[in-house]
Amino acid sequence: MKLYGDHRSGNCYKVLLTAALLGIELTWVDIDIMSGGTQTAAFLRLNPLGKIPLLQVDNQTRLSESNAIVNYLAYQSALIPQSRLHWAQVQQWQFFEQYSHEPYIAVARFIQLYLGLPVSRMQEYKEKQAGGHKALAVMEQHLQQNEFLVNQQLSVADVSLFAYTHVADEGGFDLSPYPAILAWLDRIRALPQFVAMTK
Amino acid sequence: MKLYGDHRSGNCYKVLLTAALLGIELTWVDIDIMSGGTQTAAFLRLNPLGKIPLLQVDNQTRLSESNAIVNYLAYQSALIPQSRLHWAQVQQWQFFEQYSHEPYIAVARFIQLYLGLPVSRMQEYKEKQAGGHKALAVMEQHLQQNEFLVNQQLSVADVSLFAYTHVADEGGFDLSPYPAILAWLDRIRALPQFVAMTK
Repeated sequence: MKLYGDHRSGNCYKVLLTAALLGIELTWVDIDIMSGGTQTAAFLRLNPLGKIPLLQVDNQTRLSESNAIVNYLAYQSALIPQSRLHWAQVQQWQFFEQYSHEPYIAVARFIQLYLGLPVSRMQEYKEKQAGGHKALAVMEQHLQQNEFLVNQQLSVADVSLFAYTHVADEGGFDLSPYPAILAWLDRIRALPQFVAMTK
Repeated sequence: MKLYGDHRSGNCYKVLLTAALLGIELTWVDIDIMSGGTQTAAFLRLNPLGKIPLLQVDNQTRLSESNAIVNYLAYQSALIPQSRLHWAQVQQWQFFEQYSHEPYIAVARFIQLYLGLPVSRMQEYKEKQAGGHKALAVMEQHLQQNEFLVNQQLSVADVSLFAYTHVADEGGFDLSPYPAILAWLDRIRALPQFVAMTK
């Protein structure tokens, strides 16, 4: 399968990390967000929303939305719990990630890492900090009692949240007040099939 | 099971509509967002993120995030496709809903319906319009070719997107340029076990 993506994007890295943990081979197609690669007529035909990551499943079929792609790859694997409740809790964390974590931490990181903190976005950058810390505090509280996000074992929930949390410093978030998060990040980095984000 | 919610919230209505379509009984506990009902110490003990809907699954277990609750209720029902690809496509639409639809359409509706369009939020309200119309255009394009969002049959993807789309006018979105969306809304309203949003 082909994956259209950008190497600095945490949403794309989620998919790569899932594939690595499951031993799935993906063919990477580099799309440069900054030069408008997601907004060309050719790419918009592939994904009308103009977003990456995008998985080419077969000639006719493409899948978008990072967590949907992750869950597609991990279908019936050990990364998705079999119990109804645990599987719902995994999805709870993934929706939390897209609504309450990514729009703060990933967007602040985009403004800092991709755009270089332009004056025109500084107000927005500063406003993102409170929301990001709120999300980190929720994770910290949960990880103080739990080794992994759901049912004390690795799941796609951990992969989805690892992606932008482990590079939160690139959005101005100091993780030192979150020791349980730091320990959880180390547990994920120590997985035998772990792959780092390429930069 | 007990559901903590607000009757005007589309995120809560998703859960009620899913339960109605599946014949599941829920005990409703009214939480008034506007008087701070989600920010009390008692509620924050139930959900540290201070958000509704919240499903009390049993004495020890609660589930948050509307689409995770919907998928929990619909587990192994006809509202969740059995095929790996179709199930991933359902999730794709649900993540699209939370990232590219709700933050525009539901937030504009909140500013208009709950807050009464205060001058202090007018700039933000106006900025939400473009993003909302972008999401509606993506839905319209897809629904021109499809009766329902995934695999030509009703799924939780339709329920999740119906919730805020059918009240988009309350956020200032005129749906008349979207005939395929209007026809799809009518198909959902015509379902035998359909329940309307209470206001």
